Amino acid sequence: MDVDEIAGIEEHCMQHPAVLAEIEKLKLPPGMTVCNDPWMYGTDDPNEKRRLFQCFMYIVEVDHPENNHYSLPCKFSPVFDARTKELVRMDYLPGGADHQTVETQPWVPVKAVQYAPELLDEPLRTDLKPYIVQQPQGASFSVDGNSVYWQKWRFRVGFNNREGLVLHNITYDKRNVFYRLNVSEMTVPYGGEHPRISLKYSNANITHLDPRAPYHRKQAFDVGDVGFGLNANQLSLGCDCLGHIKYFDGYRSDSKGNPVLLKNIICMHEQDNGLQYKHTNYRSNAATVKRNRQLVLQMICTVANYEYIFAYIFDQAGNVELEVRATGILSTVPFDNLNGETVPWGTNVGPGVMAPYHQHMFSLRIDPAIDGFNNTVYYEDSVPLPEDENNPYLVGYTTEQTVIRKSSSANTDVNRHRVFKIRNDNVINPITYKPVSYKLMAAPSQMLLLPKHAVGHQRAEFASKPIWVTKYQDNELFAAGEFTNQSKKADGVETWVQRNDDTENEDVVLWHSKSFLLLRQ
Amino acid sequence: MDVDEIAGIEEHCMQHPAVLAEIEKLKLPPGMTVCNDPWMYGTDDPNEKRRLFQCFMYIVEVDHPENNHYSLPCKFSPVFDARTKELVRMDYLPGGADHQTVETQPWVPVKAVQYAPELLDEPLRTDLKPYIVQQPQGASFSVDGNSVYWQKWRFRVGFNNREGLVLHNITYDKRNVFYRLNVSEMTVPYGGEHPRISLKYSNANITHLDPRAPYHRKQAFDVGDVGFGLNANQLSLGCDCLGHIKYFDGYRSDSKGNPVLLKNIICMHEQDNGLQYKHTNYRSNAATVKRNRQLVLQMICTVANYEYIFAYIFDQAGNVELEVRATGILSTVPFDNLNGETVPWGTNVGPGVMAPYHQHMFSLRIDPAIDGFNNTVYYEDSVPLPEDENNPYLVGYTTEQTVIRKSSSANTDVNRHRVFKIRNDNVINPITYKPVSYKLMAAPSQMLLLPKHAVGHQRAEFASKPIWVTKYQDNELFAAGEFTNQSKKADGVETWVQRNDDTENEDVVLWHSKSFLLLRQ
Repeated sequence: MDVDEIAGIEEHCMQHPAVLAEIEKLKLPPGMTVCNDPWMYGTDDPNEKRRLFQCFMYIVEVDHPENNHYSLPCKFSPVFDARTKELVRMDYLPGGADHQTVETQPWVPVKAVQYAPELLDEPLRTDLKPYIVQQPQGASFSVDGNSVYWQKWRFRVGFNNREGLVLHNITYDKRNVFYRLNVSEMTVPYGGEHPRISLKYSNANITHLDPRAPYHRKQAFDVGDVGFGLNANQLSLGCDCLGHIKYFDGYRSDSKGNPVLLKNIICMHEQDNGLQYKHTNYRSNAATVKRNRQLVLQMICTVANYEYIFAYIFDQAGNVELEVRATGILSTVPFDNLNGETVPWGTNVGPGVMAPYHQHMFSLRIDPAIDGFNNTVYYEDSVPLPEDENNPYLVGYTTEQTVIRKSSSANTDVNRHRVFKIRNDNVINPITYKPVSYKLMAAPSQMLLLPKHAVGHQRAEFASKPIWVTKYQDNELFAAGEFTNQSKKADGVETWVQRNDDTENEDVVLWHSKSFLLLRQ
Repeated sequence: MDVDEIAGIEEHCMQHPAVLAEIEKLKLPPGMTVCNDPWMYGTDDPNEKRRLFQCFMYIVEVDHPENNHYSLPCKFSPVFDARTKELVRMDYLPGGADHQTVETQPWVPVKAVQYAPELLDEPLRTDLKPYIVQQPQGASFSVDGNSVYWQKWRFRVGFNNREGLVLHNITYDKRNVFYRLNVSEMTVPYGGEHPRISLKYSNANITHLDPRAPYHRKQAFDVGDVGFGLNANQLSLGCDCLGHIKYFDGYRSDSKGNPVLLKNIICMHEQDNGLQYKHTNYRSNAATVKRNRQLVLQMICTVANYEYIFAYIFDQAGNVELEVRATGILSTVPFDNLNGETVPWGTNVGPGVMAPYHQHMFSLRIDPAIDGFNNTVYYEDSVPLPEDENNPYLVGYTTEQTVIRKSSSANTDVNRHRVFKIRNDNVINPITYKPVSYKLMAAPSQMLLLPKHAVGHQRAEFASKPIWVTKYQDNELFAAGEFTNQSKKADGVETWVQRNDDTENEDVVLWHSKSFLLLRQ
């Protein structure tokens, strides 16, 4: 992907006579204009070979750098060929709860919902007193180039166009822990906003089915199609973090292959996370207490309307956490809802605008090196013991271990409290007499809702299972395969596991897929 | 329960000739002594009417207010009648992976594992630089007696012996939200440490089954038996929180019914929780960003070895979270593990000491009042649409609502992304045109592992289902019933739901049971 190319499409769209003709029909009041967000084209036609962009159009209420155009979506949407710049088709978006589209009509004025403080009708709350973090002696970390040293942790900070922030060679107390850690893919299938879906759930008087409705093609691959590195915010004005901040720069390549410096693309700081530990001896009332200091490596990616805030958090007890915050603005569609209309596949978020349900499916790639490169992934279930003479009071329970001996996938299981662990069978903990290991705190989540034979599923099969284990091979970095843009089928983890490689006490990679399902209330 | 009574038992135990005789047999080195933790007696005999305590005995390595006696458990355990002070029985604890017990032998010296900084062999890390929170203008909250005002929130802080911290009459922006919010019960069934269980999992040469082994009676009810209020830490020396702190006092009653002042039993402060919101307009690079300020009400309870840190966290967007941190020290048992022995129902945590698996089952009681007292609980599943002509690209999904119309229980369901909501059917949101509601972010967790016909299950049936909905009745506050101590059966939510009350658009109570399963690695 190429950010310059998207910018080119966006500009080209605004100058195209067919687009200008549609805008003309809106008969906008003076001062109001139109803009567009070009979208990667989620192919639904196996014969489509062109590189396409679908532009979603929005009315700009006010000429302000933070105007929220997502509040006023238009009902026309041109598709362009990225290479030839040719207008492939003008799609029209339905306005109601059924599929019907009409020719572009004069805009019926409604007030946009704005988010920027300057554009709000109400003043902001002013009763929050300042909260200041001071580190008079500076931060507790030190940095040598891209190498970071904090407490017992050591690692290298990497960055590239596609994945953005990548952590390498992570060690704790001089022991190897992880070889490489990063988010390998993220896809957002929009499911539900297709107007024909409403037929099952409303009594709308449908006269025909419109094959042009484009929403089913909205399936972003924000790593493979877009690039978290390319979309990471340059934090030149500061990163809004508290305390002592260290910034790292990165580079992207432009469309000619030249390096482009990205200033302050990653930030690092310490934070306090409340109480880590407390124990009071109730006899003496003597207490030992420790607060939980953490080291945070952060990257903020803007993918048009959305923001993802990725934070790798290291603590003082050998834990590392990837925290993902999804923020920004919903991807909206036009919907004539001024008289109380609702749809069962989305939520009205303002006058004339609806946000369809969708899933965000992440793939965290964990290349472990726990006390060495030969590691084993297994899962452990908590299960009651049999009700027999050995368990007379029925209180007994134990754990069952299942080793993933061959490259494959696995499911979570809440009812068995299944946890996944990575261990080194060659190194025994001297206290527990069990192999040293790390536990993946995999909060179970719903997997891809698309059925297996849907194109959107085939393109993102990594998101159909929460756990994949492969044997390490060079160039296997991306869960949905290397080429996601207009892919018909992934060539990723679902392919690699089929090698049926040995994965016990081998150089393995653990891929964890996790969903965030966004249903606005 | 009566804290004075437990202290009396503890003291009485240490003076009893039979206990002193056992201690004598240990032949401890000069300067080393013995102490005990009295435990509520989880009855296994339906005819037992006495009020019993089982004392677990530990060797005190060093006379220090923070000596960790849990590191050196003894193998004898007296049972006392709380009323008569009579020694009911001397139990002997098995030392190996099988059930066998032996007469008390001279102690084989091992080094205790200590936690207090003064008692550690290694110095603490010193490379953490100071991290200081300053609020030069003070906190953003104000307080009038026990009423708290912060941003758009208003509520009253309550406290009692049993539940500890209780929040009342919570409103947001002058709208009712919750009538009462608190942790109603918590039980810890220890399951797995019973030595006979090992028969299924080891090849130990078992010659007989020992009916005396007492561990299956360890089932604490930390609200009903013990009282989070009675065990809350008085934070007279400060609460170790950062920034501007406000303390609330509480009262307990002593064994004569007199009020006893508990100074600084609850603390309140603000905290910063990172980025709440960011959006960058990629065209203009203009960004709006807000940090996430929170208000925290905190109570720390010490229940012998364990600490629970309860924090109710209010944010600026109408959310309230209950965060529970489990810390302190594991409840340990003696285990002769110096030659690499392990058991399948616990983890070696030091020389001669093992920590058995156990569950912590909490019940959060939510008495909602969302824009009024008549509310409805329902759950919402995310499901694919049928594969038919209305869903040609198979992308469609929608939500299915199931209203809990009669008092009953419900399960979570990860594969359907089930979420539970409380709504007011009488008040419609003017943007979404749907009833106003709150969502319970119920992270699915494994329920009680004890089978239904086990005594421990009957006593804690609330913990067998994650969701219970009852119609409000006075005096129904405790999920496992009012009298948990040596209960044979609960008389709590599982009884109340059987009334089959109407719960749609009624004064309802939502009870959420959640487990924390502790398996040390």
